[in-house]
Amino acid sequence: MGPELERLIAALARLPGLGPRSARRAALALVERRESLLEPLIAALQAASATVRSCSVCGNLDSLDPCSICGDAARDRRVICVVETVADLWAVERARAYRGLYHVLGGTLSALAGRGPEDLRIDALTRRVASGEVSEVILATSATVDGQATAHLVADRLAAFPLTVTRLAHGVPIGGEVGLLDEGTLAAALRARRPL
Amino acid sequence: MGPELERLIAALARLPGLGPRSARRAALALVERRESLLEPLIAALQAASATVRSCSVCGNLDSLDPCSICGDAARDRRVICVVETVADLWAVERARAYRGLYHVLGGTLSALAGRGPEDLRIDALTRRVASGEVSEVILATSATVDGQATAHLVADRLAAFPLTVTRLAHGVPIGGEVGLLDEGTLAAALRARRPL
Repeated sequence: MGPELERLIAALARLPGLGPRSARRAALALVERRESLLEPLIAALQAASATVRSCSVCGNLDSLDPCSICGDAARDRRVICVVETVADLWAVERARAYRGLYHVLGGTLSALAGRGPEDLRIDALTRRVASGEVSEVILATSATVDGQATAHLVADRLAAFPLTVTRLAHGVPIGGEVGLLDEGTLAAALRARRPL
Repeated sequence: MGPELERLIAALARLPGLGPRSARRAALALVERRESLLEPLIAALQAASATVRSCSVCGNLDSLDPCSICGDAARDRRVICVVETVADLWAVERARAYRGLYHVLGGTLSALAGRGPEDLRIDALTRRVASGEVSEVILATSATVDGQATAHLVADRLAAFPLTVTRLAHGVPIGGEVGLLDEGTLAAALRARRPL
């Protein structure tokens, strides 16, 4: 197939979610449909490379800085939703249930990965909160050991400020079957039961 | 996320094997790791776009023409393996069990897709065979209705030449469980049984 195709397959296989098999399929499709697939992908990659950067306020990725969420006058500036990653921010946005601002920590505390408090964007968060406009911080970290430890750390750092700190509810996922649920989630859902 | 990121996600989501979810993941990884992922991918795409073309002999995709297989003096020029697509050619190569040449038809006959004999590279195959060097043509088309119809068509067109036309054996896939096999394959495997 020649070194150029091998190199393309290797570059594609390094993307998350693409194994060697799908990388081969994608590479073939790209060189077979040059005008409709390959050239648009090059153009999109170049445009993204030239314009996309981290928002200096919240850490989101966008071609604008401040990002289109931080710069949106219609969003509620009194609420900040703290997420681990930009992927999590996008997930919350897709839920279309939140109209406040965000703060991307850049990960969680992790003994395994050697990430401590200084590796997370917590100081940037307290500086934003110190500006005074914020009345609620929602901790939308994962319900994992590291995610919960991170949530507690952030909550501690925010304790001195006059605001409410909340976290996402635990419970039965929509569409989830009770019989297939793990005990921890089921116990949390029971404790947080609500009147019908 | 801005129009540039949306455009990148859309361009990635058009690749086979990448849904919207993995396209978002890949786009995020690309802009987060610009030097190690995004720039090498752009370079690989540009190199492939500039150099990869169809081999004028066999239809393989390669940066060389004739391709590195057609140009390989160590390969047996008396055997041609006829495949539907370049992906099939690569699959046969990965099996490391074949050292002859190839011929890519560019698909199969298909009533559904409206592909007739004139849409396949059959004339190019008969011209190669007419050159006289070829003693065997292996029909490695799929064991589907369209694949088998295509194999019969190619065999008809080759009937006038003094050569052997063979096809791939049918049988139990390596690692395949007999109890889970379809009846057609099992019947074919029984008819083609061999002494131990």
